Amino acid sequence: MKANDNLTLTIFGASGDLAYRKLVPSVYDLYMQSLLPDCFAILGVGRTVYSDQDFRDKMIKGIKEFSLQPTDDEEKINSFINLLYYVPVDSKKTEDFAKLKDRLQEISDKCHTEGNVIFYLSTPPSLYEIIPANLSAHGLNKEDQGWRRLIVEKPFGYDYETAQALNSGLLKYFEEKQIYRIDHYLGKETVQNMLVFRFSNGIFEPLWNRNYIHHIEITASESIGVGERGGYYEGSGALRDMLQNHLMQLVGLAAMEPPTKIEADSIRNETLKVFEALRPIGRDDVSKYAIRGQYGAATVKGESMKAYREETGVDPDSRTETFAAIKLFIDNWRWSGVPFYIRSGKRLPTRVAEVVVYFKKTPLSLFGDESEMTHEYNQLVLRIQPDEGVLLKFGLKVPGAGFKAETVNMDFHYSGLSDAYLPSAYERLLLDSMRGDATLFTRGDAVLAAWKFVDPILKAWKKDPNVPLYQYPSGTWGPEVADKMIDGEDVTWRYPCRNLADDGIFCEL
Amino acid sequence: MKANDNLTLTIFGASGDLAYRKLVPSVYDLYMQSLLPDCFAILGVGRTVYSDQDFRDKMIKGIKEFSLQPTDDEEKINSFINLLYYVPVDSKKTEDFAKLKDRLQEISDKCHTEGNVIFYLSTPPSLYEIIPANLSAHGLNKEDQGWRRLIVEKPFGYDYETAQALNSGLLKYFEEKQIYRIDHYLGKETVQNMLVFRFSNGIFEPLWNRNYIHHIEITASESIGVGERGGYYEGSGALRDMLQNHLMQLVGLAAMEPPTKIEADSIRNETLKVFEALRPIGRDDVSKYAIRGQYGAATVKGESMKAYREETGVDPDSRTETFAAIKLFIDNWRWSGVPFYIRSGKRLPTRVAEVVVYFKKTPLSLFGDESEMTHEYNQLVLRIQPDEGVLLKFGLKVPGAGFKAETVNMDFHYSGLSDAYLPSAYERLLLDSMRGDATLFTRGDAVLAAWKFVDPILKAWKKDPNVPLYQYPSGTWGPEVADKMIDGEDVTWRYPCRNLADDGIFCEL
Repeated sequence: MKANDNLTLTIFGASGDLAYRKLVPSVYDLYMQSLLPDCFAILGVGRTVYSDQDFRDKMIKGIKEFSLQPTDDEEKINSFINLLYYVPVDSKKTEDFAKLKDRLQEISDKCHTEGNVIFYLSTPPSLYEIIPANLSAHGLNKEDQGWRRLIVEKPFGYDYETAQALNSGLLKYFEEKQIYRIDHYLGKETVQNMLVFRFSNGIFEPLWNRNYIHHIEITASESIGVGERGGYYEGSGALRDMLQNHLMQLVGLAAMEPPTKIEADSIRNETLKVFEALRPIGRDDVSKYAIRGQYGAATVKGESMKAYREETGVDPDSRTETFAAIKLFIDNWRWSGVPFYIRSGKRLPTRVAEVVVYFKKTPLSLFGDESEMTHEYNQLVLRIQPDEGVLLKFGLKVPGAGFKAETVNMDFHYSGLSDAYLPSAYERLLLDSMRGDATLFTRGDAVLAAWKFVDPILKAWKKDPNVPLYQYPSGTWGPEVADKMIDGEDVTWRYPCRNLADDGIFCEL
Repeated sequence: MKANDNLTLTIFGASGDLAYRKLVPSVYDLYMQSLLPDCFAILGVGRTVYSDQDFRDKMIKGIKEFSLQPTDDEEKINSFINLLYYVPVDSKKTEDFAKLKDRLQEISDKCHTEGNVIFYLSTPPSLYEIIPANLSAHGLNKEDQGWRRLIVEKPFGYDYETAQALNSGLLKYFEEKQIYRIDHYLGKETVQNMLVFRFSNGIFEPLWNRNYIHHIEITASESIGVGERGGYYEGSGALRDMLQNHLMQLVGLAAMEPPTKIEADSIRNETLKVFEALRPIGRDDVSKYAIRGQYGAATVKGESMKAYREETGVDPDSRTETFAAIKLFIDNWRWSGVPFYIRSGKRLPTRVAEVVVYFKKTPLSLFGDESEMTHEYNQLVLRIQPDEGVLLKFGLKVPGAGFKAETVNMDFHYSGLSDAYLPSAYERLLLDSMRGDATLFTRGDAVLAAWKFVDPILKAWKKDPNVPLYQYPSGTWGPEVADKMIDGEDVTWRYPCRNLADDGIFCEL
């Protein structure tokens, strides 16, 4: 699955953190697995004035610290590092792009990258329109000599309107097929596994619809707070930061129809269909379908935790949510009437991301009241992180006289696979972009459809003083009221981990 | 789940092995769990002349050796052993039964067993008609004072005709509802679990039919040969010894419709319906649907094994099968067109009993030829022994670029349940018979239906010289030709354990 086209990967914001910690180390990992094309170069671009050598020296450190592949062969590192170049450019200055153009030509001449270029925008979103415009001013978006691709990092807009504007901005200079919107969540093995799990098994797909599924729950929780990023987070919040992108992508994968092929547009068409079938939440219904919360101070495992409003860079009267949960419906033939519940939050008991499918109970409870099973649903848990795997909860007989049933667990852990090398999300996605495979990148129309769905919630939360903002103690699963969202008797969110005591957390799977 | 009716358990053949190793130790286990009624007695009956004390002394040894419950409390053992009595009776002599009647009356007067009596026939089948007749001659079958039940051990006949005769013989003196035909296989936890597994889970039952199941395989293998029992086995063979009873019962449980209630006749009606829907195998088709084999000499794990024909008590030209496999169809709405394969044999690589459900493949192979999954069925393995549990084999993504699927295993082991006390089959069944619960006992009509199905095979194997009898080396999975029975590409029987080397066997689950 090597990338065959020779190319130059141009990274805007090359002096920044993402390039240092993720991008260059991931490319190094590809290099070590011989997955790069024969002629390949990285051209770093940034305002900081570095020589090629400065840039290389810095990146060697990043590789040694963050690469997943071995870094003890100095010769290998050196031959990789010589593929790196740097050009100082102020992205706001159109004239600076002449230098970039020259440098690209020089590299192309030298190592025969044949004019193929990926432009990776690892920059603040404010530059997402300026850079494409400046590239265009120098004809760098034109594909008359080799191909040109543009990778954009999230956030893809701030709400529906800004996302629309960003989209149109990009499309002024690049075609949709040239644009790769990266959501590193889709680069995760287990996220992709959802496709394989659903569509390679005769046993699960027949059950995957309104006839057999009671509801689906998707959780992405973090145990940490905002830390030093309070200033940034104030302008974002859980809904923008996690739900609109990552969790909606998971909804898309969990709910989509079987695609015609495992190919970018087949799959992305199906994702879009899911988003387009989302039942809109009217601004007056927001309190019924969405819950927001903010973490409060608490002592967790003996450590005292600040409230969100006390964090550095956070307004003491902040209305930004650190927890968000939405109940949504997909109004199509497969899912009509099946609620999906999605939630994300900071300072929850543990870091976990999982999809839980609750299957309907049997039509009759044959094993009567003596059985605890009468209160339980069969559950399938697809764990995305941290301990990737699958868990199935179903009923078996309690040993002994009579016919009493109880719930037992059957599980599979990826970590149990011998010598399984799990590539990082960036490694996977960078390789795909080099190969021109956009399957795991978000298409503009899907981004807009997801924004369209969450937009009324954003607006109501911003403007309607009647919509409550619940406080929850750090180290809990968010506002208690969120449990009331779930339809059905004796059903709450799944609590994959519980605080058993101050000194230990029990997690299932 | 205690037995409430006071009663006397009368064991014919009380000086024999079954009473010593299984029956009395199992009753002791019930006693230790306070599951016996307040007034309870065992009356041993046999030709051997024992006093009550002789019988008690012998049974103490049996209890100490074979009981599953603790036996270190002498006081408890003694108070249990004082519930045991013995009366010497020649079962063939009608007049002897007067002594039995007196002894029963005496026990009833003494410990208020209120005339409730279970007669357990732990005797050669030749006595199955004589004892009921003699009981009847003394009015001991009459329920005018307390209830009377008759427990019969297999074999229930030798073929369809003899089974019919036995049934009519029993029904001359006892009503069907008084007769408990014991098949210890149905007393096993995991066999009963099949009911709970199928009917308490919303996830499996919807898949349990011709739409989603490709075929079902049921195996009961033994690693031992006939040992000292060659003389007995010569008159039996694998088909009579295992398939007609145990394996057919498993077919019944795996294939039945959901019963109206978890009650004896609801469940037994459904089993009967399955047997009645079996597609008859004509005598001319026997070679197409049934395979028989006989083990040959071989060296297994360094030990040299005799051929069946060399065993003590076996005819050197014996035509008795030690391996039998049948392909069968259940012609009803649920199972039409789904083959069931059942097999059993001696001197196979390991002792295992399991039901394997092969689910149909997905309608399309989305993940293409690069995936090994294209050749595999999702499989659900219900392991009955030795390591009771459930195994599910399904497809997940191979880590790394692309979308390649591979089969992984998810499993559940009963032995993993903390402090799970698994009652023995006899313990369970004796308690059920005391409680008047016939759910796990075979009804006469079902016994006959099972015989009717296998009878043409028995007849052809006996009389038709054209039906081959294959030899197979000890320590293999039977005649190779048995693999050809399975319909479908790249499908064989499942080999739950493989001989990896002379010094080790690898088993899955």
